[in-house]
Amino acid sequence: MRGVVMHGPGDVRVEDRDDPRIVHPTDAVIRLSATCICGSDLWPYRGEDEVHDAPMGHEYVGVVEEVGSDVRNVKPGQFVVGSFVSSDNTCEICAAGYQSRCVQGELMGNIGTQAQYARIPLADGTLVATPGMPPDALIPSLLAASDVLGTGWFAAVAADAGPGKVVTVVGDGAVGLLGVMAARQLGAERIIVMSRHRDRQALAREFGATDVVEERGDEGVAAIKDLTGGLGAHSVIEAVGTQQSMMQAISATRPGGHVGFVGLSHDVNLPGDELFFSMVHLHGGLAPVRRFLPELIRLIWNGKIDPGKVFDLSLPLADAAEGYKAMDERRAIKVLLTV
Amino acid sequence: MRGVVMHGPGDVRVEDRDDPRIVHPTDAVIRLSATCICGSDLWPYRGEDEVHDAPMGHEYVGVVEEVGSDVRNVKPGQFVVGSFVSSDNTCEICAAGYQSRCVQGELMGNIGTQAQYARIPLADGTLVATPGMPPDALIPSLLAASDVLGTGWFAAVAADAGPGKVVTVVGDGAVGLLGVMAARQLGAERIIVMSRHRDRQALAREFGATDVVEERGDEGVAAIKDLTGGLGAHSVIEAVGTQQSMMQAISATRPGGHVGFVGLSHDVNLPGDELFFSMVHLHGGLAPVRRFLPELIRLIWNGKIDPGKVFDLSLPLADAAEGYKAMDERRAIKVLLTV
Repeated sequence: MRGVVMHGPGDVRVEDRDDPRIVHPTDAVIRLSATCICGSDLWPYRGEDEVHDAPMGHEYVGVVEEVGSDVRNVKPGQFVVGSFVSSDNTCEICAAGYQSRCVQGELMGNIGTQAQYARIPLADGTLVATPGMPPDALIPSLLAASDVLGTGWFAAVAADAGPGKVVTVVGDGAVGLLGVMAARQLGAERIIVMSRHRDRQALAREFGATDVVEERGDEGVAAIKDLTGGLGAHSVIEAVGTQQSMMQAISATRPGGHVGFVGLSHDVNLPGDELFFSMVHLHGGLAPVRRFLPELIRLIWNGKIDPGKVFDLSLPLADAAEGYKAMDERRAIKVLLTV
Repeated sequence: MRGVVMHGPGDVRVEDRDDPRIVHPTDAVIRLSATCICGSDLWPYRGEDEVHDAPMGHEYVGVVEEVGSDVRNVKPGQFVVGSFVSSDNTCEICAAGYQSRCVQGELMGNIGTQAQYARIPLADGTLVATPGMPPDALIPSLLAASDVLGTGWFAAVAADAGPGKVVTVVGDGAVGLLGVMAARQLGAERIIVMSRHRDRQALAREFGATDVVEERGDEGVAAIKDLTGGLGAHSVIEAVGTQQSMMQAISATRPGGHVGFVGLSHDVNLPGDELFFSMVHLHGGLAPVRRFLPELIRLIWNGKIDPGKVFDLSLPLADAAEGYKAMDERRAIKVLLTV
């Protein structure tokens, strides 16, 4: 099959890879309908994470091709969505809703789903079948559920977004924008997005943002305080992962408020004393997307949400290198690859 | 009046200080029945925080002597308990239960309650009167409510201790020990205290600890994992405030679990990536003791809890210097000063 391999920073190629096959009786093999490039794929692309000849990709939707002998919940021919971490969905950690830290879990990035086919470990606990074969128009949204929507949703839940709450979103990438959507769906009263990009501001407003703050750092925090009677937001979604964005998120939150952070941390060190006096709730990390998948698929299937709008560039898998380039240069928010 | 002043590290004296008086119409002046020395008072005593000629103390119980013209909820002659931070108990932050970050709040440590009298700002929102004049036997427990019990209680609540939960307590000082008591009262199933001191282990068991772990750091974490099926505790109370204790607390918590941290942070930097993958809930800081005072006073008044047992040395105010010495040398867990 054809699949994306990153040979080194900036060096993305689509080449022949071995066809995946069932390894464990709990595996499935799917034929991908679409996959995409994640903001986190840019870390190695930019040389900020090490990479050598690595198969890439962890987001996926497609049709089940084959299942192992122990698989009960999905069957060949079904259209499925799965999380970027496999999970048995039965262990104590999964049962508590933390499937991204399943005791048997595996990062799908190690498998590489920017490809024609992919082996999905723990298929019964990882995959969720859609009610039927989706029309093409729904595929981008279902694909978004696999990571960026699920991650934004988790961030909003971790930030305790809900009725009566003022929510601030730090980061206007796909995850931040879908954090806006999640906060709206969860009933937040006011949603302030921190963004300097007109096109992203527009999409944020379409997804439910009520206010835009263009300032960053201390000025950004001051702007949020101005909008919240000097107190700070009740709920802050952090979707960047840098020292500045984390501190901005914590400082923009009122005492007793909640920060939901999902930006993959890079060189972040949180000073204990600031955290101590901030009195925020801090929760986040690797989003347990699987927890939310049934609900997200239902909302998409019923036309309640259209998260696929974050894909502003669609390319065939063969042109993956151009997709990476477009995201790296911020010409695209998020790139869908058709398979 | 007589009061404690710390002139520099290790230099604690009891000397004449100005009698406090009503400054704002929302003030009260109380005559202290007892006060005490806090673990946090040892930071400046040991030269780890700067100190010059500072009045000391932030814990207090006593009888209202005089109230300002705007005070409605307490009156002269009443016995009162207050938090170590003053609070109006009406602002939006107070209403959310975060009175330690009241928009008008003030740290009582700036006033110095290791003294015969003290001015209490925002008396209506800060002080809680007991149902009547307490017998002497209850005074240590009521005094404990003013900080260490309230702080341990907040830590247990922040750590989401409750029925079915395995709780671990990092730190066997007064706050950690009372965190054990709080976890027991909140219905925790199992309470593991991390302690190397036999006398503190014994008190922890009396307060409700079911297990003791003597190891620290990685070995301590491994021991907690061994006791919890490899997963870690559901709830961890951190009551020390060092880098080691914070990382021990985070690492001993299962994904999706809760860390309630109340040890005053000193030189703590939390690595973002470890926090990201830990997937714990992190909450804590300056305990909003006022939130819990009515309930704590009720439990003490009705003889349900006896937190005063953490005071293992009682001295007259005049001997405060010896009290500091005893705590510094770990000869005493916590020192009560009679006034």
